Amino acid sequence: MTVGAEQSQREEDLIATVVASFDGCADRRLRELMQSLVRHLHAFIRDVRLTEEEWNAAIAFLTACGAITDDRRQEFILLSDVLGASMQVVAVNNEAYANATEATVFGPFFVEDAPLLEQGGDMSFGAVGEPCLVVGTVSDTEGRPIPGARIEVWEADEDGFYDVQYTDGRTAARAHLFSDAGGEYRFWGLTPTPYPIPHDGPVGKMLEAVDRSPMRASHLHFMVSAPGFRTLVTHIFVRGDELLASDSVFGVKDSLVMDFQPHPSGDPTPDGRDLGDSTWSDVRFDIVLAPAAS
Amino acid sequence: MTVGAEQSQREEDLIATVVASFDGCADRRLRELMQSLVRHLHAFIRDVRLTEEEWNAAIAFLTACGAITDDRRQEFILLSDVLGASMQVVAVNNEAYANATEATVFGPFFVEDAPLLEQGGDMSFGAVGEPCLVVGTVSDTEGRPIPGARIEVWEADEDGFYDVQYTDGRTAARAHLFSDAGGEYRFWGLTPTPYPIPHDGPVGKMLEAVDRSPMRASHLHFMVSAPGFRTLVTHIFVRGDELLASDSVFGVKDSLVMDFQPHPSGDPTPDGRDLGDSTWSDVRFDIVLAPAAS
Repeated sequence: MTVGAEQSQREEDLIATVVASFDGCADRRLRELMQSLVRHLHAFIRDVRLTEEEWNAAIAFLTACGAITDDRRQEFILLSDVLGASMQVVAVNNEAYANATEATVFGPFFVEDAPLLEQGGDMSFGAVGEPCLVVGTVSDTEGRPIPGARIEVWEADEDGFYDVQYTDGRTAARAHLFSDAGGEYRFWGLTPTPYPIPHDGPVGKMLEAVDRSPMRASHLHFMVSAPGFRTLVTHIFVRGDELLASDSVFGVKDSLVMDFQPHPSGDPTPDGRDLGDSTWSDVRFDIVLAPAAS
Repeated sequence: MTVGAEQSQREEDLIATVVASFDGCADRRLRELMQSLVRHLHAFIRDVRLTEEEWNAAIAFLTACGAITDDRRQEFILLSDVLGASMQVVAVNNEAYANATEATVFGPFFVEDAPLLEQGGDMSFGAVGEPCLVVGTVSDTEGRPIPGARIEVWEADEDGFYDVQYTDGRTAARAHLFSDAGGEYRFWGLTPTPYPIPHDGPVGKMLEAVDRSPMRASHLHFMVSAPGFRTLVTHIFVRGDELLASDSVFGVKDSLVMDFQPHPSGDPTPDGRDLGDSTWSDVRFDIVLAPAAS
């Protein structure tokens, strides 16, 4: 679409006026954020020549996101996730550092004060799914073990639900533990399974309208922190999962895809745990933390 | 802030992946909108190097906008207005055409089915304020009168409130009338007075944080339609109003600033209306409609 010089000038003059309206903002960072937001927002409107009908639809969409959001449902985070914005914020704030483990999206399902596990404990707390033994080390980028690192883990059950989506308020499939004196950790969780992000709201309708799937690739969440190191928020994914290439929130990175080894029913477990007639899996995830920003 | 080549490549790769996720969208226009939105949103995040704390604040802000929005309050429209986005949509959709009257923002206070006025009638319906006689013509860009044009008018009372902000549900200071056989119209309204946009919510807090005023320049709303012509949504402003240069929604255009002539108490009115001991004003607003898009 061609826009005449006079029309173009009017549109640019408006941007200049709006940008200038923030000149008096005493908070320099806030001023920078708002002026950049205005420039990019107006550039979008001009590039697509947004119609008034489309603007109305955008207002109605944001209104619907607001209406469905409450203490247990966060549609604006979902929106940020499916637009890749959450993942871009992760990228910008977690620059690659030597061989440090890569970060990925936090997601809306973390809960503070999850139960403490002993080494080798079971974080499922009754959540349904195939048992999975997770072992690994926490070390710095020089390969030195980090003892006492705090490891938060959380995941969905095999039906695709986190405990906060249960109606009975119980805690399940989440815990925290600490790396031992040698930097090692070990716990039982569940073999990750794929699930859709909540898609009964406006974000789900949007994904349907653009012919995108709401499915997330199977994953297990980690948040690892230790004094002097950059806190790592990440997942591990399952090699062979056919959803790796179409994760609805763009969280997959090659370095985070792990080999989950399947074991048939009756295969003895390394720690002697009796799993009855259940199949199980195991996986190794060695975690490397970057130093904290100086 | 400098970003290394490898980091920059990661960020660009993410954008490419997110953009590609919309490739399968069958609706071409929707695909164009979403892909452009993604590019501009990610460019904003990268340009300002948005922190995770700032992203959290943005999510909380949108959530608060959603929580205050209901049938009578539309915080997302306010947000679009104070960012100049609404005015940019008006600009993009109402390109200048010969001497046609310029458009400005619609605002959130229009109501369908406002009462019908006879020529010279009073649209205040009991709203408090100084009487103002508004006269003018509706014509095409060749100067030919347009008879039967539908003219919707609405405005705030002298306390700065529209009727929809009253608690008793009554209709006041809004009406519609039609241009006569010669294209002329005439009605009594109120001399416009300045007022703040609703600023007790998150948008008001944002304006305070950036040291911007919520005040709108004094104005009277018009929406004028006639078969074969582009519908005009506009306001007229009051010459001499000190808020003309700092209107909180960027709606002012020089061509829309009119001379409201003040009259002392007792000055006889052109139509013989008895205003008791009230002062009054009058203004002429000649409206020129562009042809409808072919």
